[in-house]
Amino acid sequence: MNYPSGIKKCFQHQKNYSNRGMSLENDINCTNEYYLNSNIAVIYKKPTPITIVDVNYPSRRDAVITKAYFKTPSTTDYNGIYKGKYIDFEAKETTNLTSFPLCNIHKHQIEHLKRIYCHGGISFLIIRFSKLNLTFLLTYEKLDYFLNNYDKKSISLDFLKKHATQIHDKYNPRIDYLDIIDKMYFKGEFYEKEV
Amino acid sequence: MNYPSGIKKCFQHQKNYSNRGMSLENDINCTNEYYLNSNIAVIYKKPTPITIVDVNYPSRRDAVITKAYFKTPSTTDYNGIYKGKYIDFEAKETTNLTSFPLCNIHKHQIEHLKRIYCHGGISFLIIRFSKLNLTFLLTYEKLDYFLNNYDKKSISLDFLKKHATQIHDKYNPRIDYLDIIDKMYFKGEFYEKEV
Repeated sequence: MNYPSGIKKCFQHQKNYSNRGMSLENDINCTNEYYLNSNIAVIYKKPTPITIVDVNYPSRRDAVITKAYFKTPSTTDYNGIYKGKYIDFEAKETTNLTSFPLCNIHKHQIEHLKRIYCHGGISFLIIRFSKLNLTFLLTYEKLDYFLNNYDKKSISLDFLKKHATQIHDKYNPRIDYLDIIDKMYFKGEFYEKEV
Repeated sequence: MNYPSGIKKCFQHQKNYSNRGMSLENDINCTNEYYLNSNIAVIYKKPTPITIVDVNYPSRRDAVITKAYFKTPSTTDYNGIYKGKYIDFEAKETTNLTSFPLCNIHKHQIEHLKRIYCHGGISFLIIRFSKLNLTFLLTYEKLDYFLNNYDKKSISLDFLKKHATQIHDKYNPRIDYLDIIDKMYFKGEFYEKEV
């Protein structure tokens, strides 16, 4: 059976409990593919930042990187555009049951989310408690409120239940975070320009 | 002498004619650092997309990528936010004297620029003729006009002189492309939100 471009990979995905660290990323990538193919939004995961040390060039087309290091990311993993607005977010999973440890997010990633907010973008975190099968969208505004008023080491599940919005699993798109953004920032209005 | 964070690297840069391919990228990176440090805009170059094949983990901190391949980019190199608007562009140099060969830009990068435009973002190309020391900003609208009306193999310097806007070299920021964007899309209005 042939699925439309970009859909196949998502149907093939099965929840694999030995590989939980990948599943939120996979769900978001599939969701972003759905948004792209449906002309809803253009949101991509940025490539992993690395420092390339050695490259072997047997020919121009066949370059092989033979030595490289992972770099600490200075921005978030995901960004793009939805209804004319700049969207920027980081997504993380935890196996904890009662709180999300903030050490999972680099300090300059939080600074980046703040900058985006200050420049008029929509910035947020997606946090999944993988053992509880609970996924939340926490806006930068609420994260800022948390950082100014609470213990900064971890965000409790109770705080998230009160101040974040739960993203319920769906079939397609898997985790429809733009539905939440839509209700929060756009109230469902339609935006599209024609070339 | 200590320069403010992020500025030092830019002052150190000298035009190196044996290394011309890097200089537009370097100029744009320095310009983006200036925009970030001056709280004008948040625009980054995306990391080079690669496919990682082998990683050696002597310890969690010291992971070394020992085999990886370059991937064809599916989007452009630069994106970010300026005055609340999503900004997206690709930058290329040519050593040609009379035209810019479009084979320098992947077809899906042009499709990406079109998508961004259709979703209400500001998308464009920055094209430098390195031997002529001429740099142009060509909006997606004008690129689309070109693709619909001209031979699609290369964009002539004459077309760019007529339909693109020249970015003049400055000391700092090096190539102030947002000054052009500002005049085209914002007419100099001020935008900043406070947290």
